Amino acid sequence: MSDLLWQKTGVRVDAQIMKFLAGSDVVLDRELLPYDIRASRAHAEGLGRIGILDADETAALLRELDALAADVESGSFVLDDRYEDGHSAIEARLIERLGDTGRKVHTGRSRNDQVLVASRLWLKDRLDVLQSLCRDIAAVCLRRAETDPALPLPGYTHMQRAMVSSTAMWLAAYAEAFIDNTTRARQALAWIDANPLGTAAGYGVSLPLDRDYTTAALGFSRMQISPIYAQLSRGKFEIAALDALGAAMLDLRRLAWDLSIFTSAEFGFVALPAEYTTGSSLMPNKRNPDVIELMRASYSPVAAARCEVEQLLSLPSGYHRDLQYSKGSLIHGFGHGLAALALLPNLLAKFAWRSEAMLAAIDVGMFATDRAIELAVQGVPFRAAYQQAAEAPLPACGADPQASLAARTSPGGAANLQLDVLKARLAALA
Amino acid sequence: MSDLLWQKTGVRVDAQIMKFLAGSDVVLDRELLPYDIRASRAHAEGLGRIGILDADETAALLRELDALAADVESGSFVLDDRYEDGHSAIEARLIERLGDTGRKVHTGRSRNDQVLVASRLWLKDRLDVLQSLCRDIAAVCLRRAETDPALPLPGYTHMQRAMVSSTAMWLAAYAEAFIDNTTRARQALAWIDANPLGTAAGYGVSLPLDRDYTTAALGFSRMQISPIYAQLSRGKFEIAALDALGAAMLDLRRLAWDLSIFTSAEFGFVALPAEYTTGSSLMPNKRNPDVIELMRASYSPVAAARCEVEQLLSLPSGYHRDLQYSKGSLIHGFGHGLAALALLPNLLAKFAWRSEAMLAAIDVGMFATDRAIELAVQGVPFRAAYQQAAEAPLPACGADPQASLAARTSPGGAANLQLDVLKARLAALA
Amino acid sequence: MSDLLWQKTGVRVDAQIMKFLAGSDVVLDRELLPYDIRASRAHAEGLGRIGILDADETAALLRELDALAADVESGSFVLDDRYEDGHSAIEARLIERLGDTGRKVHTGRSRNDQVLVASRLWLKDRLDVLQSLCRDIAAVCLRRAETDPALPLPGYTHMQRAMVSSTAMWLAAYAEAFIDNTTRARQALAWIDANPLGTAAGYGVSLPLDRDYTTAALGFSRMQISPIYAQLSRGKFEIAALDALGAAMLDLRRLAWDLSIFTSAEFGFVALPAEYTTGSSLMPNKRNPDVIELMRASYSPVAAARCEVEQLLSLPSGYHRDLQYSKGSLIHGFGHGLAALALLPNLLAKFAWRSEAMLAAIDVGMFATDRAIELAVQGVPFRAAYQQAAEAPLPACGADPQASLAARTSPGGAANLQLDVLKARLAALA
Amino acid sequence: MSDLLWQKTGVRVDAQIMKFLAGSDVVLDRELLPYDIRASRAHAEGLGRIGILDADETAALLRELDALAADVESGSFVLDDRYEDGHSAIEARLIERLGDTGRKVHTGRSRNDQVLVASRLWLKDRLDVLQSLCRDIAAVCLRRAETDPALPLPGYTHMQRAMVSSTAMWLAAYAEAFIDNTTRARQALAWIDANPLGTAAGYGVSLPLDRDYTTAALGFSRMQISPIYAQLSRGKFEIAALDALGAAMLDLRRLAWDLSIFTSAEFGFVALPAEYTTGSSLMPNKRNPDVIELMRASYSPVAAARCEVEQLLSLPSGYHRDLQYSKGSLIHGFGHGLAALALLPNLLAKFAWRSEAMLAAIDVGMFATDRAIELAVQGVPFRAAYQQAAEAPLPACGADPQASLAARTSPGGAANLQLDVLKARLAALA
Repeated sequence: MSDLLWQKTGVRVDAQIMKFLAGSDVVLDRELLPYDIRASRAHAEGLGRIGILDADETAALLRELDALAADVESGSFVLDDRYEDGHSAIEARLIERLGDTGRKVHTGRSRNDQVLVASRLWLKDRLDVLQSLCRDIAAVCLRRAETDPALPLPGYTHMQRAMVSSTAMWLAAYAEAFIDNTTRARQALAWIDANPLGTAAGYGVSLPLDRDYTTAALGFSRMQISPIYAQLSRGKFEIAALDALGAAMLDLRRLAWDLSIFTSAEFGFVALPAEYTTGSSLMPNKRNPDVIELMRASYSPVAAARCEVEQLLSLPSGYHRDLQYSKGSLIHGFGHGLAALALLPNLLAKFAWRSEAMLAAIDVGMFATDRAIELAVQGVPFRAAYQQAAEAPLPACGADPQASLAARTSPGGAANLQLDVLKARLAALA
Repeated sequence: MSDLLWQKTGVRVDAQIMKFLAGSDVVLDRELLPYDIRASRAHAEGLGRIGILDADETAALLRELDALAADVESGSFVLDDRYEDGHSAIEARLIERLGDTGRKVHTGRSRNDQVLVASRLWLKDRLDVLQSLCRDIAAVCLRRAETDPALPLPGYTHMQRAMVSSTAMWLAAYAEAFIDNTTRARQALAWIDANPLGTAAGYGVSLPLDRDYTTAALGFSRMQISPIYAQLSRGKFEIAALDALGAAMLDLRRLAWDLSIFTSAEFGFVALPAEYTTGSSLMPNKRNPDVIELMRASYSPVAAARCEVEQLLSLPSGYHRDLQYSKGSLIHGFGHGLAALALLPNLLAKFAWRSEAMLAAIDVGMFATDRAIELAVQGVPFRAAYQQAAEAPLPACGADPQASLAARTSPGGAANLQLDVLKARLAALA
Repeated sequence: MSDLLWQKTGVRVDAQIMKFLAGSDVVLDRELLPYDIRASRAHAEGLGRIGILDADETAALLRELDALAADVESGSFVLDDRYEDGHSAIEARLIERLGDTGRKVHTGRSRNDQVLVASRLWLKDRLDVLQSLCRDIAAVCLRRAETDPALPLPGYTHMQRAMVSSTAMWLAAYAEAFIDNTTRARQALAWIDANPLGTAAGYGVSLPLDRDYTTAALGFSRMQISPIYAQLSRGKFEIAALDALGAAMLDLRRLAWDLSIFTSAEFGFVALPAEYTTGSSLMPNKRNPDVIELMRASYSPVAAARCEVEQLLSLPSGYHRDLQYSKGSLIHGFGHGLAALALLPNLLAKFAWRSEAMLAAIDVGMFATDRAIELAVQGVPFRAAYQQAAEAPLPACGADPQASLAARTSPGGAANLQLDVLKARLAALA
Repeated sequence: MSDLLWQKTGVRVDAQIMKFLAGSDVVLDRELLPYDIRASRAHAEGLGRIGILDADETAALLRELDALAADVESGSFVLDDRYEDGHSAIEARLIERLGDTGRKVHTGRSRNDQVLVASRLWLKDRLDVLQSLCRDIAAVCLRRAETDPALPLPGYTHMQRAMVSSTAMWLAAYAEAFIDNTTRARQALAWIDANPLGTAAGYGVSLPLDRDYTTAALGFSRMQISPIYAQLSRGKFEIAALDALGAAMLDLRRLAWDLSIFTSAEFGFVALPAEYTTGSSLMPNKRNPDVIELMRASYSPVAAARCEVEQLLSLPSGYHRDLQYSKGSLIHGFGHGLAALALLPNLLAKFAWRSEAMLAAIDVGMFATDRAIELAVQGVPFRAAYQQAAEAPLPACGADPQASLAARTSPGGAANLQLDVLKARLAALA
């Protein structure tokens, strides 16, 4: 490892301890490095604006930061354990290339606000991806709900047959879910969209930093004013982002559960394209819906990431090294969560309903509610209608699933899906 | 217990099983009962609008629901284990008073949407209280930051003395935190502000329910359209509300940590009014800051409530009885969380800073950063300045805390708190 | 509320704050009160043995503690909000009855060790109940596995049909699970079986307390020696007990999942006695397996209780008021968890297999593994055998489920269940 | 990637899906590979014993498995994404070297029991390391408690000065804690010490596998008999191991909290060797106890790992692909947890107490309890003694910390530490 920025003469460094301190920082910082460079660029410009750097120094720093960004993107610069972390690597490179000018870049900032701003920019991008995936998922659901034939699908409560539902109702449900999830991602993004750069170690510095400039330059919608609060928000903002991801993952988990059950031989309502299944190492007969199971399981890393951050946060105000662990959690949680969501639009577009099996699973009891409502419309008090229907379940339409669906006129019901309202909501989030 | 709504002839009921099924429903439903009555009122009006009830029936139901609401408020009606749950209690009362008219109230709804709408209205009220408490807390902090003398307060990182901070900086930090927490509560409220009434058991009903009317009558900002999604949102919306509460509680926990440490004899920075402390049963000398510790601990029930709901939600779509457990969690979490937040405005208004102890804890090392910045302003590259300052730490102003604060001109720093911006943000949330 | 033990002259008590401090302590302490009385008895005897109390005082205290215990059991003494908590109530009663002798009972102890010992005794009893329930569950499973006819049951992996299994294999699996769970409960009990009484506020006292005596008198297997550690163990021991409960609940949850799926119409493998099902408020046709769903859901309160305690424990050593919240968590978690387990033996004894549906779900592909193994036995390398079996799956025995089971001779397989080994393991835990 | 074991002709493989399915399996399996090879060895021997392999085939497989183990250890074989996972890699290598003999190794097993046995052996080793670390920590604490001078140390409750404690009391507390933690690790190890090899895909196989042999050969203390239970135990056993680790980590966290506070300037009770501290990138004056903070934070990955596994386990019986995610969790949790514990013995051996600061923090109020007890011994009822001591706190010995400690004769108190009992307990765990 290169010299440590903060190392003092005469202090021995213990290898086992240094390894423990460094953890996987350099690996994790690979994710953050482009954002760190971008924020360093804004910081250098800001120093130029208040005269800490002259025009040449500023230009040189921007040039070298751009070069580094290009090297990172091309793979010709790889962050590795020559460096304590990404922050040190950037500064080391600037010093190597620019000498004293490089030694000036850290004026008025601390690694505390440096990691805050880099990880916040990273998080904002992840929430953008989350929004976009949720929108895509909702769009696929809406499209199939609108253009596919609306097949009768048994509707369950308590895993027991309840009432006739339809494939369009099922699709519209997840469409509405992912519209809400898009909104949630957007809310989270708006909430964390605050610039911590310029808060230094948590107490500000004795320089009139142009934080309005860096806030605008980095595309933040507001400044995080208080340096102490900037530190307090570490972990709290990360949890908010994971909460938004988690909301989408909860629906993904329930959708995966539906598909897991619907693809069982006993239900047999859904057929998956072959590429979504795998075989067994022992049993020659198997085609297993592993993709669906791992989608369902992907809630776990998101929950674990949230747990990992949450467990760190029982602390007084001020920076504590504990907070460093939140980096890995985020990357783990968003990595797994977004990967699972990214597979969903295609899967939803491609799976096939097996209408024969669905029809076969609609039994006569599933019309009893229709019958009870019919009696209620005729003036029988509902409680009496309920008792009568339990004994003589057939409604006027007979046991005809399509007729049952056609009569389901309550808003949101099969005969009144209000897809246009949902489409308008989705369009408003474009 | 009175007759069960769904009981069928000839099925034996086992006492131990019934007890397990009922759990604490009747106790928990006391919280929800007023909201359930309110939603039942809207449902009855809706049935009137589509002709399921005639004008007299509608009027009678509204009158009796209002009477019940009054009895609940006055305490002359208490929900107890004569009833299976609050829903049954309402229907039983209406039948007792109105006979067949009462037997009509459940037409076109299910306990599934009934509990959804009641608990959602309850949640909306809780989030309103949360918003209001967060605003109050921010306001107290801003007021003290603005009007109290700004005393030098040691600023810590890693629990080690770092730089001179100020009481105003500390207060401004929590002001900004609770402004953000207000926004978060507002976002959560907006997100869950969707009417599930009229989705019945999760598949709609064959009645043209006037859901637009009930949505408006109950003050929801949008309809939750899909009946299947209404069921999918149970737990998910509850978690979102707890997430918003949790964000505020995270800051409360850190604030309580600060006060716990600041009230230790070794720090001695804060004096609490006597009513916030208690004694020991064994040690005659003690005055313990129990209130602060329980505030800190109050994060736990909120986290536990979230955990309890989250653990329920690995399910296929459709209603499952598991979801019933989310009621108790919510009441537990919001009960404890809001109670702790409610004590904070007064505590923040009343505690006293002990400036002598604070000054005594400001040592000369805490000016080293000022010195390094000074050198950097004079053109010494920051890395070199850092090395020089480590050896010769005194800045030009000497070791004068007030001078250090006066020079802290970075936005958010002690000399540039931007309280007006924070006040404007808070006012925008009024 | 009566006078507070620690109240000092002239300190005003604020009602809202006192309510926050008290929480539900008096309600929760009703659970702990008998244990607190028992421990107070041992403490009084111990004080007698070292001469702090003379023989008459000791006898008087024991007499009054026994009387109080009897009153609590009979219901003639009910802990309510006249008292700050259960500890205060005991002392108040002794003072009321015995005057100065009552005022001596708290000599050499603190509420800190008092609550530790009472809650530990309570926990030990709960773990005893847990052990006993796990044993009962295992015993029912073993009995049915042994005496019921072993019916072919489809075996699933990934919710897909895999190989022929049997009802006896299924029962033996849960038998082994609950044998392990019994062991786990026993380990936890042994681990926490340490007496904290006599550690006072966490630093001991200047009295030669006879802790060996109280350890033996209260039935603890060892003394918890260090007073500081006694405090450190609060929460940690509670979590260990919840961990043991949680292990059993994990299996209960999976068992409930099996039954939830097996009772669906599509699987139809299991019929529940009518008393384990309930109806719907809307749908006349429903018989819902609510009991099974609430059993499955009962993992949640146990997980939540653990979470609630865990979140409290990021603290320095020494008692902190935060720890008080662990009481409610424990009662919540063990209350729900043990109630769910308690219903299981009867349910397992009473549910019926529906063999026709089970047989109908065994398809020809489920014999492919048998075929591959057959080929392997004949010398075909397994990888080649696997490929051949995938194409021509029928084994020599044809598609006969009973033959497939009869050939399953690997230890634990259907033809080699080793129930005797399991019975011996269970007997060893009696 | 090489051919997939289960691939069928004509099924297209999608790259994005394959990546999602594979996850980080090959990286994670590097940890498990030596254990997988060891279990494969036992499996091959077992196949030899029942005649599925002849003596030459068995010998060849053992030879190649040993060669592979050696190559793995030397680094000449590295598991990478040429393989689907470690299991496939082993089989591919054996086929490459031995042709048809290699194709026989998977006879009678599935990847399901293969991963179970490999991860269980790995877990047993981790629990062994955990035991050993806990023992080391306890031993260091006991040694210092016994041989260092017992310095007076302020004892706190509620972070407030309570009574005089001593450095030896503090050390003895953590010694007892880590003795219990050793026991806990041992219990967990005993509980999971059950051989799942031979349970195949969860339903056994039609071969008389010699599971008694493999159980003994792999050093398991018992056979996990039921194949269905073997699958049910996945996750449950992993959680049990993490629970044991978590218990130790809870104490580590509290110890780290103590040191974090004791190393603050305000307390100043502890000095850390320089190699345990780091500097700041901005503030030249700082020496931060990062190691202690990361030790404290290391509870988080352990909790997160538990959470990640727990979230997977709401499933019916039988293998589901979801369970695959438990591998990464375990490696994450044990990796971080054991690394933090491993630094503790040296840290505990090396840190220095600063007795002057400790003495300065002992104020006169801390003797009030001694005074109250003194009065109680003289016959003053304790409640009265408590009132008197609150006003006139000085005990007979004056405000002499050493005298206070010398009088602390309750077992576990400073004058009666019972280190011999603790040493005997520790020795019994050697």
